[in-house]
Amino acid sequence: MLSGVGFFGGLFELKGFKQPVLVSSADGVGTKLKIASALAKHDTIGIDLVNHCVNDILTCGAEPLFFLDYIAMGKLISEQVDAIARGLAQACREVGCALIGGETAEMPGLYAGKDYDLVGFIIGAVEKEKLITGKTIAKGDAIIGLPSSGLHTNGFSLVRKVFGVIPSALNAYYSELGRTLGEELLEPHRCYYHQLKPLLPVVKGVAHITGGGLIDNVPRILPQGMAAQFNSRTWKVSPIFRLIQQRGNVTRDEMFHVFNMGIGMVLICSPDNVDQLTQALPEAKVIGEVMEQVGEARVVID
Amino acid sequence: MLSGVGFFGGLFELKGFKQPVLVSSADGVGTKLKIASALAKHDTIGIDLVNHCVNDILTCGAEPLFFLDYIAMGKLISEQVDAIARGLAQACREVGCALIGGETAEMPGLYAGKDYDLVGFIIGAVEKEKLITGKTIAKGDAIIGLPSSGLHTNGFSLVRKVFGVIPSALNAYYSELGRTLGEELLEPHRCYYHQLKPLLPVVKGVAHITGGGLIDNVPRILPQGMAAQFNSRTWKVSPIFRLIQQRGNVTRDEMFHVFNMGIGMVLICSPDNVDQLTQALPEAKVIGEVMEQVGEARVVID
Repeated sequence: MLSGVGFFGGLFELKGFKQPVLVSSADGVGTKLKIASALAKHDTIGIDLVNHCVNDILTCGAEPLFFLDYIAMGKLISEQVDAIARGLAQACREVGCALIGGETAEMPGLYAGKDYDLVGFIIGAVEKEKLITGKTIAKGDAIIGLPSSGLHTNGFSLVRKVFGVIPSALNAYYSELGRTLGEELLEPHRCYYHQLKPLLPVVKGVAHITGGGLIDNVPRILPQGMAAQFNSRTWKVSPIFRLIQQRGNVTRDEMFHVFNMGIGMVLICSPDNVDQLTQALPEAKVIGEVMEQVGEARVVID
Repeated sequence: MLSGVGFFGGLFELKGFKQPVLVSSADGVGTKLKIASALAKHDTIGIDLVNHCVNDILTCGAEPLFFLDYIAMGKLISEQVDAIARGLAQACREVGCALIGGETAEMPGLYAGKDYDLVGFIIGAVEKEKLITGKTIAKGDAIIGLPSSGLHTNGFSLVRKVFGVIPSALNAYYSELGRTLGEELLEPHRCYYHQLKPLLPVVKGVAHITGGGLIDNVPRILPQGMAAQFNSRTWKVSPIFRLIQQRGNVTRDEMFHVFNMGIGMVLICSPDNVDQLTQALPEAKVIGEVMEQVGEARVVID
């Protein structure tokens, strides 16, 4: 890193690329923050944010270069800021991403009590010729799913409606989860960077399953006229999703629209490359296939 | 811009640099937001945010490449988001910066009523050999000030303490301002990019006068052992600052610590280049000089 910065940012010398494409993403962690606040546990929410951002740009084949954060609170509580920053730093270190700067803002009257918002900005880069665009995806290509570690950072508004956010509800133990609801909900968003990086050359498309689930995220990488057909019996929907569905009396369709339902990342590849990918990624499973689009639906989940 | 993005970000192909240094900044607009909300005027706050970010990275000599925004509200109000986005787009267009993406988050329970937070993230670039670092600043160098357009985006918490944020206080007309208090306070943060860009080769240091005023922002670019001596009679402190000081019974020291006091940008150059700069920038004035540091103070304002 270079010196001489008089603002809340940083400098990064870009080296080693012939035709660099910069890939950026801005993200929050949504109301997962509210769960962290209710349980006064702030040292993992930064991991969620960084990993969410890293996975986002990984969909283009980009490696993370640097990260900036924005933390806003009504009144700065230094232990809380320190805990958040520890999580950010840990997750950045694990993927070799420079935590280059950011801003911590005190906004009296905008945030109540110990509430805060947390936003992350990531910049990565990829050689232009290695950019993953999904353009070559064709009928018959395999759809491979990688398990999520839980809700990741999506669906928390619905979760809060179903369970509330009072500590007693979050501290309840569920035998099907093998831990408390709060522990399950705060499980950090998994990062797929190290596993997927060496395999990107044989992948045609990568979708990060965030808000909107498989239904909204997979079509973004499909060429016009193509659709994704999933067979939901090919993977295990984690117990937390069944619990939310039962307690909240949520329809299957809404569940698939709001949550990742156990699949955190989707890879699309030629049938010829399935064995290579599933051998390198023991948890990965073929969960569907690319089809020609019939009617309006671009995603069908059987 | 390239296609194929399945997340709230974007792609930017970096071209035309030999040894690019990426310069980034993350910023909010602080509680200027509360003034915009009280007056239900949201189409200039995005200009504030972009210009703040552009000025920040200009201190390193960087030209803006692309920008991402984060807007969070309790419940999305589309007219409000549209107005904010219009301001962002206008200010980006004026400096040739791509508004590449961002996220609009709905966070029920975190933001009350029509409240929102707005965060910007800018990436610029500069050739490594043209990076402005302040390293060559020496005793006897001239300090040149460029006028601000008002408060820019700093000091609003103090302003709110002095005047309150009820519409009747903001709609009061002040003859010394020639307009209402609210109009004065919402005056957009001025952008210095086009004026300063051609002059950067003869500038040794650039400081953007944000929170902390001249007192905190100028030392950031001074080499160890150097201090800045300002003569406050050399420039006109805008009427808004005198009004705040009188109404709030604020000390001179606090005023200079919280506000820009009429100077939005500071340039430091060799005495030989003063004429060139002041001829090219008719509003610019020599407002001080670089001295050897005596005692603790790195900034002295006479």
